[in-house]
Amino acid sequence: MLDDYLIADEPYYRPLGNEIALFEAAYAHRLPVMLKGPTGCGKTRFVEHMAWRLKRPIVTVSCHEDMTASDLVGRFLLDANGTLWHDGPLTLAVRHGAICYLDEIVEARQDTTVIIHSLTDDRRILPLEKKNELVRAHADFQLVISYNPGYQSVLKDLKESTKQRFVALDFDYPAAELEAKIVMHEASLPPAPAKLLVTVAAKSRNLKGHGLEEGASTRMLINAGLLMSKGVSFAEACQVAIVIPLTDDADLRDALRSAVAACQ
Amino acid sequence: MLDDYLIADEPYYRPLGNEIALFEAAYAHRLPVMLKGPTGCGKTRFVEHMAWRLKRPIVTVSCHEDMTASDLVGRFLLDANGTLWHDGPLTLAVRHGAICYLDEIVEARQDTTVIIHSLTDDRRILPLEKKNELVRAHADFQLVISYNPGYQSVLKDLKESTKQRFVALDFDYPAAELEAKIVMHEASLPPAPAKLLVTVAAKSRNLKGHGLEEGASTRMLINAGLLMSKGVSFAEACQVAIVIPLTDDADLRDALRSAVAACQ
Amino acid sequence: MLDDYLIADEPYYRPLGNEIALFEAAYAHRLPVMLKGPTGCGKTRFVEHMAWRLKRPIVTVSCHEDMTASDLVGRFLLDANGTLWHDGPLTLAVRHGAICYLDEIVEARQDTTVIIHSLTDDRRILPLEKKNELVRAHADFQLVISYNPGYQSVLKDLKESTKQRFVALDFDYPAAELEAKIVMHEASLPPAPAKLLVTVAAKSRNLKGHGLEEGASTRMLINAGLLMSKGVSFAEACQVAIVIPLTDDADLRDALRSAVAACQ
Amino acid sequence: MLDDYLIADEPYYRPLGNEIALFEAAYAHRLPVMLKGPTGCGKTRFVEHMAWRLKRPIVTVSCHEDMTASDLVGRFLLDANGTLWHDGPLTLAVRHGAICYLDEIVEARQDTTVIIHSLTDDRRILPLEKKNELVRAHADFQLVISYNPGYQSVLKDLKESTKQRFVALDFDYPAAELEAKIVMHEASLPPAPAKLLVTVAAKSRNLKGHGLEEGASTRMLINAGLLMSKGVSFAEACQVAIVIPLTDDADLRDALRSAVAACQ
Amino acid sequence: MLDDYLIADEPYYRPLGNEIALFEAAYAHRLPVMLKGPTGCGKTRFVEHMAWRLKRPIVTVSCHEDMTASDLVGRFLLDANGTLWHDGPLTLAVRHGAICYLDEIVEARQDTTVIIHSLTDDRRILPLEKKNELVRAHADFQLVISYNPGYQSVLKDLKESTKQRFVALDFDYPAAELEAKIVMHEASLPPAPAKLLVTVAAKSRNLKGHGLEEGASTRMLINAGLLMSKGVSFAEACQVAIVIPLTDDADLRDALRSAVAACQ
Amino acid sequence: MLDDYLIADEPYYRPLGNEIALFEAAYAHRLPVMLKGPTGCGKTRFVEHMAWRLKRPIVTVSCHEDMTASDLVGRFLLDANGTLWHDGPLTLAVRHGAICYLDEIVEARQDTTVIIHSLTDDRRILPLEKKNELVRAHADFQLVISYNPGYQSVLKDLKESTKQRFVALDFDYPAAELEAKIVMHEASLPPAPAKLLVTVAAKSRNLKGHGLEEGASTRMLINAGLLMSKGVSFAEACQVAIVIPLTDDADLRDALRSAVAACQ
Repeated sequence: MLDDYLIADEPYYRPLGNEIALFEAAYAHRLPVMLKGPTGCGKTRFVEHMAWRLKRPIVTVSCHEDMTASDLVGRFLLDANGTLWHDGPLTLAVRHGAICYLDEIVEARQDTTVIIHSLTDDRRILPLEKKNELVRAHADFQLVISYNPGYQSVLKDLKESTKQRFVALDFDYPAAELEAKIVMHEASLPPAPAKLLVTVAAKSRNLKGHGLEEGASTRMLINAGLLMSKGVSFAEACQVAIVIPLTDDADLRDALRSAVAACQ
Repeated sequence: MLDDYLIADEPYYRPLGNEIALFEAAYAHRLPVMLKGPTGCGKTRFVEHMAWRLKRPIVTVSCHEDMTASDLVGRFLLDANGTLWHDGPLTLAVRHGAICYLDEIVEARQDTTVIIHSLTDDRRILPLEKKNELVRAHADFQLVISYNPGYQSVLKDLKESTKQRFVALDFDYPAAELEAKIVMHEASLPPAPAKLLVTVAAKSRNLKGHGLEEGASTRMLINAGLLMSKGVSFAEACQVAIVIPLTDDADLRDALRSAVAACQ
Repeated sequence: MLDDYLIADEPYYRPLGNEIALFEAAYAHRLPVMLKGPTGCGKTRFVEHMAWRLKRPIVTVSCHEDMTASDLVGRFLLDANGTLWHDGPLTLAVRHGAICYLDEIVEARQDTTVIIHSLTDDRRILPLEKKNELVRAHADFQLVISYNPGYQSVLKDLKESTKQRFVALDFDYPAAELEAKIVMHEASLPPAPAKLLVTVAAKSRNLKGHGLEEGASTRMLINAGLLMSKGVSFAEACQVAIVIPLTDDADLRDALRSAVAACQ
Repeated sequence: MLDDYLIADEPYYRPLGNEIALFEAAYAHRLPVMLKGPTGCGKTRFVEHMAWRLKRPIVTVSCHEDMTASDLVGRFLLDANGTLWHDGPLTLAVRHGAICYLDEIVEARQDTTVIIHSLTDDRRILPLEKKNELVRAHADFQLVISYNPGYQSVLKDLKESTKQRFVALDFDYPAAELEAKIVMHEASLPPAPAKLLVTVAAKSRNLKGHGLEEGASTRMLINAGLLMSKGVSFAEACQVAIVIPLTDDADLRDALRSAVAACQ
Repeated sequence: MLDDYLIADEPYYRPLGNEIALFEAAYAHRLPVMLKGPTGCGKTRFVEHMAWRLKRPIVTVSCHEDMTASDLVGRFLLDANGTLWHDGPLTLAVRHGAICYLDEIVEARQDTTVIIHSLTDDRRILPLEKKNELVRAHADFQLVISYNPGYQSVLKDLKESTKQRFVALDFDYPAAELEAKIVMHEASLPPAPAKLLVTVAAKSRNLKGHGLEEGASTRMLINAGLLMSKGVSFAEACQVAIVIPLTDDADLRDALRSAVAACQ
Repeated sequence: MLDDYLIADEPYYRPLGNEIALFEAAYAHRLPVMLKGPTGCGKTRFVEHMAWRLKRPIVTVSCHEDMTASDLVGRFLLDANGTLWHDGPLTLAVRHGAICYLDEIVEARQDTTVIIHSLTDDRRILPLEKKNELVRAHADFQLVISYNPGYQSVLKDLKESTKQRFVALDFDYPAAELEAKIVMHEASLPPAPAKLLVTVAAKSRNLKGHGLEEGASTRMLINAGLLMSKGVSFAEACQVAIVIPLTDDADLRDALRSAVAACQ
């Protein structure tokens, strides 16, 4: 049923600490897990890696502020023979035993966070109120959510009654040496330019809170590396893959450009 | 009809006081009941326990701000033979004599609270206005609602004309000894670590109002216990099941971590 | 057609003053009537009593802020043979000569208050604009609305052009002796405890405006009485039926508990 | 087609001035007319009288803030043979030559006021955009709108481009003698009590702007008169038909009650 | 296909300046045109005149804040054989080569202004995203929009990326002599009273910004003239066609009435 | 399938710098590209040029604040045989290997930006949640977005987690000589008047931030040139194609007119 959602090849993942063992302990009891950390640092890659490692299909949903409970749970569709129920991605995972990964759940409307309450305590049921069905979770089902504490505002935060149901893991950018290895692997880059890119990233991250909302993510370094592999110069690759996307502010761009120049 | 909603096995519940007798007296007259208390302290478990004890099916609805009266009462669905009425969860309970538990009712839109008015006085009727039907409540039907006074704001509070229809029971975290027993039972933990976890919880609850929105719930202690049962250390279990989920604030995390360290 | 909406047994009602005669005079000319007063003081019971006395069916609608004109007037439903018009509760009453009681009309959206304009002057017609039908009111039709002046705010008030169409009756809590009789009757209680409950209510009503939004209603006293009839003590019955539902404020709860203690 | 909307019997109307001749001159050129004045002073009665006098059917629409252009113009309905267009009340009047009376048009959403633009200049067309039909107005069609200047706010006012298309007539409460005659006629009351009621109304109108939003309308006096015709006393009739509906403020009620007492 | 939208008879139009030649030059390249000017000064008449002169059908849409892109572009309707696409007025004009006139486009929601972007640069295509069709504009298609700079606010203004696509023409009230000729023609009035009306208009326009939102438009003068042709006096015609529609303020009404009196 | 979306003739484009090579390097890895720059400077033309150069079909979507994820991704339509899925423009491009160009993506609602996340990392999948299908992107698919930094506000900005997925290119108005060549080519104008128009543009751009929201775009110069080619004078062409569209402010109009006069 969910073969499409199985991950065939091992997703490349370099652990930051003990997170693989902790996730496995949580999965053993099917405890719901929350991944916390900045954008582009590898949370999505980690959960895909764990799905591959645990040999479970993974259903990923990118949450957004217009998403409703029906988008997760399902709805009736009109058919030649009347209405037909269509399972949403969450119900699909609950029924057939996938890991369901709700990416950036705080972005979603409150009804989507409430819908997961009965799935994340010992009841492990999903009531489909529109068809009066109680779906009991498949033994292999687990719920994983992510969110970025930097975005967390008073208006958009998880309710205490949601938060307290999850075991949580912290994520951050990898240490310099590890990050260079990741960039080398993902962009097929030799060590020297990869290290230069990591140095640029470190400088940009120091500008966080001094005008920049966030520093360059590992993903940006990989983008720059990929352009370099097509013959784009280091300076120009940093310019279009890091500096221009990060900010439109002239002073911050100058600061970032100096950082790039200093690395060459 | 509602066999799916009967609870087969006794839900583990340790009373805090006289609440079982009071609920039974209220049920004898089918008085509507409101459960007040913080998240994760056992309100849902209590109502499931009472449903089991009274041998009544229980229909639970997690309320949220996008829930409408139609979600509770029902709607017409399109069928090959035209439209067909589909009872919502509340109507299901009213018609067939279940306990209907509306969890965190203040989260719902006002139309859902008004819909219960004629069910919670001596009329005990539910008008299905969309099909001009007056459903008279089954003799066994009872309405139970919950809400968390900590969340109660000016914008989201029950109207007086709703509140005054309910008999209300207060809930809180169990006393230390009782809470340790609950953790031992639910996480299959020996007494010593269970008591340590309860001590951590007590300290976190003292931080409520000093930056923390709420202290650790009993549920969190059980999560930590479950991780320990898979070989995770006491400190790491507290870290991922209590500290990280509760807060992103560095100072509060330090305070909580010190509390954990002091317990070892 | 409306037999379901006839009230078979005399609803117990003790008049506060001349309201029965005034309502009958208004009904003789089919003048629309507005009932004003606090929650739980007997407005709904009064209109049910009058419907029984006048031998007219009564269609009651609890208004709320998501209610639309279509909810009152009706809508087209899809059928195997195309669309079929379905009368809403107001149209039902207009067409077949019932009393239509719109409870807490100020809660509804403006379109619902405007829809009643042509019904409440000498035209006595209800235009069903969606099907170009002019329904002329049945000779027995009358409109009754209620609202609680305490809730009345700038944002939610009846428009002058609506207000001025109604004859209005004031309601309030019954005098002590009368209220005791009502509690005795409704909760099958002997005089002594009924009087005690009325004394508690009086004290709670003095706290209105000093933190309490409203004092205890007659309905609450009856709830307390019903619990006592099942063996719950006076103090505990007051606690769960009056104190806890009314407020979460610790000081106000103490004040109310002292009032209860002083009565014993 | 519109026989239902013809007014069979002459609606009782006593002119305040030259308004009948002015309306007839406007109708001769089919100029759109706007009626301005307070609630309950006879605007609706006047337009019904003119429809009767001109022997034209009249389609009345009470506007409200949830009314959309589709409510006026029409919509597609689903039928066994697919969709079927259904003319709204405005299109009905445009097509078949009725007077269309939009009561309190400022209450409606902007799309409804814009929809009448092409009907109120020399084009006299109504584009049904949803079916690509241009309805050219029947030679007898005329548009009449009303609004109450007292309600006019910055948020809810007609746009200049709408206003400037209309010829406007001012309305106000009738002079005392005329108002007494109207009350006598409508409530079948002898002259003496009718005059007393008019005196009460005059006093209430002096309170406008001193706490009262509006004074008593002629309609209220008729309501009071009708109650008196069923044996209700003058004081009690004024109380329930004028004082209680007008205000909940204790001081204003006292002032109004003194005015009533002074009349007896 | 669009014969209904052809204008058979020359619409009476007296040019203010060079606008006819400029419009023709713009039409020669099918450049989109924006007409700017106050209400009732002849923008709609001008575009109808140009459509007649260029022998092109004209599809006019009065924009409003509830208008959506679908209202312009089209939508699927349900039919006995499934869904059927129905071209909206803009698509109709694009496909068959009409002038499409969007009246007061700033009133519409942003999606409607964005939809015209690909039609107003050299691409001249209209993507019907809901049916994955790219409609290439008919060689004769042209887009014309109007707006009133007086209404222009920060909230409701055209985006720069929309504005900069249009060639714009300014409109204003005609000079006194020309305006008198227009009033004479449209209301079949002799020169003397037409000139008096123009004098009244001039005085009202001086009050703009001193309490009046706008002065009397040419349209209002024509309305007054039409009433006079049915025997209404000059003073009364000005009163109902100009003074009362323009304002409810007593002082401004006095000022306008004095202006009228001074003209006689 | 997407032949309609192939660009047959080379779109005229004069490069500003290295952007063609950089875009090609990005396309080689299918990296998503973001084009930044003011309105009317050639971003849309550039992406059309690149689509032609890379021989890929291009699906362009003008984003707006009412656009939803369903508008991009697709929806179920009702058919004679039940519901039928209809790919939206994004899905069309993903499935069949087009370049998808989302113009002014910041204008769209958040759900549309989140929907592209899984398409812009190494997963390159588009989950169609409403039909539980995972569309793996065609090998030729690439995503391009544009936005105007001048419009960027706190309320409407791309989320960091979206931004950091893109390689970005800066755009601006062409240098004077290049811009003159573009105007000559597009409006078939001789060099002298084209240079005059570029001088006017330069002066208008100096007024940016001194009352003008933006200076004249290259597009406006072409519009003026096209009018001149039909015999409109330089001054009048500047007036209707530049001055009147840019501003309604009398002082700014004078300043712009002086700039035009100084050029002659």
